[in-house]
Amino acid sequence: MSRREALEKQLGHRFNNAALLEQALTHRSAGAGDNERLEFLGDGVLGCAVAEELYARFPRLAEGRLTRMRARLVREEALAEVAGQLHLQQHLKIGQKHPLTPSVLADAVEALFGAVFLDAGYAAAREAMLHTFGPLLASLDPSDVEKDAKTRLQELMHARGRKLPEYRVVATHGAPHQRSFEVECALPELGLAAVGAGTSLQRAEQQAAKNVLEKLPR
Amino acid sequence: MSRREALEKQLGHRFNNAALLEQALTHRSAGAGDNERLEFLGDGVLGCAVAEELYARFPRLAEGRLTRMRARLVREEALAEVAGQLHLQQHLKIGQKHPLTPSVLADAVEALFGAVFLDAGYAAAREAMLHTFGPLLASLDPSDVEKDAKTRLQELMHARGRKLPEYRVVATHGAPHQRSFEVECALPELGLAAVGAGTSLQRAEQQAAKNVLEKLPR
Repeated sequence: MSRREALEKQLGHRFNNAALLEQALTHRSAGAGDNERLEFLGDGVLGCAVAEELYARFPRLAEGRLTRMRARLVREEALAEVAGQLHLQQHLKIGQKHPLTPSVLADAVEALFGAVFLDAGYAAAREAMLHTFGPLLASLDPSDVEKDAKTRLQELMHARGRKLPEYRVVATHGAPHQRSFEVECALPELGLAAVGAGTSLQRAEQQAAKNVLEKLPR
Repeated sequence: MSRREALEKQLGHRFNNAALLEQALTHRSAGAGDNERLEFLGDGVLGCAVAEELYARFPRLAEGRLTRMRARLVREEALAEVAGQLHLQQHLKIGQKHPLTPSVLADAVEALFGAVFLDAGYAAAREAMLHTFGPLLASLDPSDVEKDAKTRLQELMHARGRKLPEYRVVATHGAPHQRSFEVECALPELGLAAVGAGTSLQRAEQQAAKNVLEKLPR
């Protein structure tokens, strides 16, 4: 079995057009024909396939919980986990100087789903999603879908009649395409604050809120 | 032509299962069998169909611009515009005391796409999207896809070597499910600040950033 066949087996899809697979595995640092547009497409395809599956699998779950479950399945950490199962690091074409980050791997997973969709349509992409996300889907516990940290912190302050958290960007690092952020979340009334870091403002804010929640007296 | 047939014609889909259409048109304030779960599903379906169309329609456009175009097509304002074309306000079942807001109409549009998807599959939902989003799609100008206000303001401050904007929630109104927010965006170094309001933190922040951008010396 060739390396490509091994990957196709893990993915649950055999490509008619091998060039699409090739493109999905090409990071922009490796030159032309990169996977960025496929990543855009795959993000939509994956969001739809995951929504369809959650809708069917949890017929009594309310919209808010379904939304949080979906967010959990398509966030970077989950996609990087799928990349690990597929051993994508062995298949990815990436510039020698470019680090192989979880974000690069997660983007390539999205691109793969865009490629399967173009190769054989929505049903094939859905099948590949079920094949690769099987373990993640099986691990979902509908009673355990927590609200995100920013929402929890905000609701907590609201319930306690306190002023809402304040977020402030304290630092940014890196070039525009590889930027990372540090955000401070503060509860001035309580004299509490914490900093969080992440590859997007949203992630850094979530991390900061999480750190504040941990400091908060119960 | 019955009212239902008129709506089906506008939507570009004739339902096999009329109960799905009924459910998509039922706001939670009107009682059981509401459209919230269909809205969750439809959000995914619509995101995928719009991504597929933009990918095909603009073969040379980079991922960042495609992403901004998609955001523009599926944001509340655009969905409420589609609701207007469909005259959804005439069809929606909603509690007598509940206001018919753009957000209610936008959610019902998403739910309709969820219903078409369950009724007849992805291809049918895609057809209905092309049918109803035709005017919006035709109005897209790829050279005119602006970055959002928060991103623009941040990049501008970065380019000018200034500290990044600070965002602070100054007020929230309403019950948890109908909350609205006021956020202040400040550039303390420049002594500039403005407040924005919106039905989510994200929208209020965007509005505040937009208002600051307008105040900023060129």
